[in-house]
Amino acid sequence: MTITITAFERSPDGGRGLARDTRVRWALEETGQPYEVRLVSFQAMKEPAHLALHPFGQIPTYEDGDLSLFETGAIVFHIAERHAGLLPDDANARARAITWMFAALNTVEPPILDLVTARVFERDKPWAAQRLPLVEDRTRERLDQLSRHLNDADWLDGAFSAGDLMMVSVLLRLRASGLLDGYPNLSAYVARGEARPAYKRAFEAQLAVATGQQPRPAAS
Amino acid sequence: MTITITAFERSPDGGRGLARDTRVRWALEETGQPYEVRLVSFQAMKEPAHLALHPFGQIPTYEDGDLSLFETGAIVFHIAERHAGLLPDDANARARAITWMFAALNTVEPPILDLVTARVFERDKPWAAQRLPLVEDRTRERLDQLSRHLNDADWLDGAFSAGDLMMVSVLLRLRASGLLDGYPNLSAYVARGEARPAYKRAFEAQLAVATGQQPRPAAS
Repeated sequence: MTITITAFERSPDGGRGLARDTRVRWALEETGQPYEVRLVSFQAMKEPAHLALHPFGQIPTYEDGDLSLFETGAIVFHIAERHAGLLPDDANARARAITWMFAALNTVEPPILDLVTARVFERDKPWAAQRLPLVEDRTRERLDQLSRHLNDADWLDGAFSAGDLMMVSVLLRLRASGLLDGYPNLSAYVARGEARPAYKRAFEAQLAVATGQQPRPAAS
Repeated sequence: MTITITAFERSPDGGRGLARDTRVRWALEETGQPYEVRLVSFQAMKEPAHLALHPFGQIPTYEDGDLSLFETGAIVFHIAERHAGLLPDDANARARAITWMFAALNTVEPPILDLVTARVFERDKPWAAQRLPLVEDRTRERLDQLSRHLNDADWLDGAFSAGDLMMVSVLLRLRASGLLDGYPNLSAYVARGEARPAYKRAFEAQLAVATGQQPRPAAS
């Protein structure tokens, strides 16, 4: 049985690793699972065949035999639950690692998404300059708290887990804003994630799509 | 061993059930787990004792013996994993139910949070009137997709699950905006959730705090 994921045919970030398939690729690499990638165009993402896999018309999706999943957090959790490497064995430590996955996606990522919206999608709006500091402050509040929690630890709770994979991925979206630079321990935390061999393989694989080094399949 | 959760001493919504402890109460009621509640003031939420339980200084938290968790999604998942009633037995159906939990929290809730921010917290800003339609459109895009997926089904994927619990809870935040009224099947879906006896018990319990019918513990 081969795992197949979907990714952008042309990623809006041009291969900087910010599209969400990178998170899934990273989880598959950490757990040593081979996988195939089906590239989808923006047009194909809104067509019935893809919507049957992903009701919100996004990537990534995950197919393995008769199971198909969408939603990055759920896919990473599914991989983490089935293969060693992303969740601790101890029941309490496992529950806490899962907590950090949800914290990354539901507490830390929303203000960051809002910041990306303000900086990129609403950049030319008349309110852009006046509103940006407000949105930055909301993001900083979360970063202050996260930085205080991490302190001088390597990872959020003991050994590297799916919670760190998700938090590092979420924080990477902030790099362009410069906000992360105000938090040396969070910057080092993100760099620690990027230095993992599994992350590097995932990053290279998504970059190969952007640079055209990966052959495009006939059907997308 | 008694499960203890935290909730607002004075909920900002005045007992309309929108604070996130309602989601956890609902999960505990669906699975028939007794629980105790410790009320915390806004001031206490930012103090070291509470921050040790919740790094982001929010409610709810969850304590059971030597395990303490934060983050609503993680707490509901923890309850669902341990007690029958919120996740199907079949492995693939279980993975899909978990997918809907993540979809509720990471795909549907972020634009709704942004809408609440625009409607409430940025209401008096000079850009409020001009920006609101933009934020509403982003929310509607998600509602369109969700409505199409739900179609005329009762629940998102087969029987009621933790995915529905979370999605209904997220959609409830929209009621005040009127946006839900444009989607009869989503309105009926939310009403179906609210009609569940477990939801009603959870709602009544949080309302009793707001109306002062629940005795306040000496220490918060």
